[in-house]
Amino acid sequence: MKGALLYEGKAKKVYSMLGEEYQLILEYKDDATAFNGKKHRIFPGKGQLNNKISAHIFEYLHDQGIPSHFIQQLSATEQLVHQTHIIPIEVVVRNVATGSLTKRLGITDGRSFENPLVELYYKKDELNDPLINDDHAKLLTGIQEKELSFLKEQALLVNEQLHALFKKMDITLVDFKLEFGRLHDRTIVLSDEISPDTCRLWEKGTNRKMDKDVFRQDTGDLLEVYEAIWQRLKEDIHV
Amino acid sequence: MKGALLYEGKAKKVYSMLGEEYQLILEYKDDATAFNGKKHRIFPGKGQLNNKISAHIFEYLHDQGIPSHFIQQLSATEQLVHQTHIIPIEVVVRNVATGSLTKRLGITDGRSFENPLVELYYKKDELNDPLINDDHAKLLTGIQEKELSFLKEQALLVNEQLHALFKKMDITLVDFKLEFGRLHDRTIVLSDEISPDTCRLWEKGTNRKMDKDVFRQDTGDLLEVYEAIWQRLKEDIHV
Ligand SMILES: Nc1ncnc2c1ncn2[C@@H]1O[C@H](COP(=O)(O)OP(=O)(O)O)[C@@H](O)[C@H]1O
Ligand SMILES: Nc1ncnc2c1ncn2[C@@H]1O[C@H](COP(=O)(O)OP(=O)(O)O)[C@@H](O)[C@H]1O
Ligand SMILES: [Mg+2]
Ligand SMILES: [Mg+2]
Repeated sequence: MKGALLYEGKAKKVYSMLGEEYQLILEYKDDATAFNGKKHRIFPGKGQLNNKISAHIFEYLHDQGIPSHFIQQLSATEQLVHQTHIIPIEVVVRNVATGSLTKRLGITDGRSFENPLVELYYKKDELNDPLINDDHAKLLTGIQEKELSFLKEQALLVNEQLHALFKKMDITLVDFKLEFGRLHDRTIVLSDEISPDTCRLWEKGTNRKMDKDVFRQDTGDLLEVYEAIWQRLKEDIHV
Repeated sequence: MKGALLYEGKAKKVYSMLGEEYQLILEYKDDATAFNGKKHRIFPGKGQLNNKISAHIFEYLHDQGIPSHFIQQLSATEQLVHQTHIIPIEVVVRNVATGSLTKRLGITDGRSFENPLVELYYKKDELNDPLINDDHAKLLTGIQEKELSFLKEQALLVNEQLHALFKKMDITLVDFKLEFGRLHDRTIVLSDEISPDTCRLWEKGTNRKMDKDVFRQDTGDLLEVYEAIWQRLKEDIHV
């Protein structure tokens, strides 16, 4: 079933799926990286956690009417997805100010936004994923105006749904990053992963960080925290 | 006539106008600064040149139907303008890639854009004028969606008119920065200055730089180059 290794990223390996031209197998790795790969560590078990967390979230989003590349979980660390051509734009939604934003724009850490902010970053490690605007996005990726609007709308819909999901888990969805790709027919669909690697999650009340920031900032045990997210998530019977 | 000094910036002094509550006198200084003030030099005569160049360009834009804060030139270094509350957003239009853009996004220097790019920067010296998107602009300045659209439309109109003007002078308009402000009735109007300090101007054929880059990069005589711009500009009888 599992074909050739096509690409290895920082967090996942991408394999072809034998007999299925337009499907791929994503294998979640145990690697954690931060600061564009400058900080790196292996956490045995992280791949399994992110695989099941991401699978659960994509299933939840499907049930809420938001399609994605996700087809099904195949094993502890693998999931089957529709192959897409990833659009090299990271779409970030922010509900609370933290991280790079506060330094760049002088905004107080922890400030909640009345309206979520949507940001685009050019996905290009060599350039350190710079912030871009719509004109840059069109120039750099050939994406069209109305496709960009679609990306932003989808991102805001995902935000509403994830906000509701995490709220039930007593967690504030601070911000997250999405990637989108084009299916064989050029339709754009949510791709990549949604996990504590790609979201900032703060426990309500304590403000304890339950995401990759515990690794970035060395403030806790990544595996313990990801496991806690999984435990709360799997109790959610959402349909 | 000239009232109190209200504010001194890097390139101009701002005075009140006695007896005219909603007018100001802008006095152009001889100072050149670059890299957010880290590089600084006095060029005796620069203030006069930029005052007449900026006055000429605002008059030209008025004649093309683009209003601004400009009322009239008062003296060699002074001009009378409508007082505005400056919106702290620098609106940049780019026709050709150069400067910060090429480094940030990996775009080849000198590449012409089929469609001009419009960029917004947060005007805040302490933060080094960071690039922002529309959501940031709304959050940071309270500007509304349709006002932002107006700013961008105006910037593109200014680009068309300036492109045509400089073309007659055998000069390529590479990029430029605009500032807008609110009049007493909150109407938004083009403000600040338009000069070789705020535009990149390349001589056609030779690609000689005829703007502040000669100072930034120490590649020529700023006064000679600004004088050449003025000589070509004043020969333009545009109505
Ligand atoms: N459905 C998909 N089809 C093709 N590629 C995908 C799909 N989903 C995610 N990818 C890509 O898989 C690659 C590996 O993921 P990851 O390890 O997170 O990479 P990165 O180091 O770029 O973050 C990335 O380039 C990601 O964009
Ligand atoms: N019509 C106007 N009303 C009020 N302020 C203005 C007007 N036009 C320009 N300004 C402001 O005058 C100040 C002085 O200009 P300048 O020396 O170029 O300042 P800076 O150092 O911020 O570039 C700036 O804050 C500029 O935004
Ligand atoms: Mg990734
Ligand atoms: Mg200025």
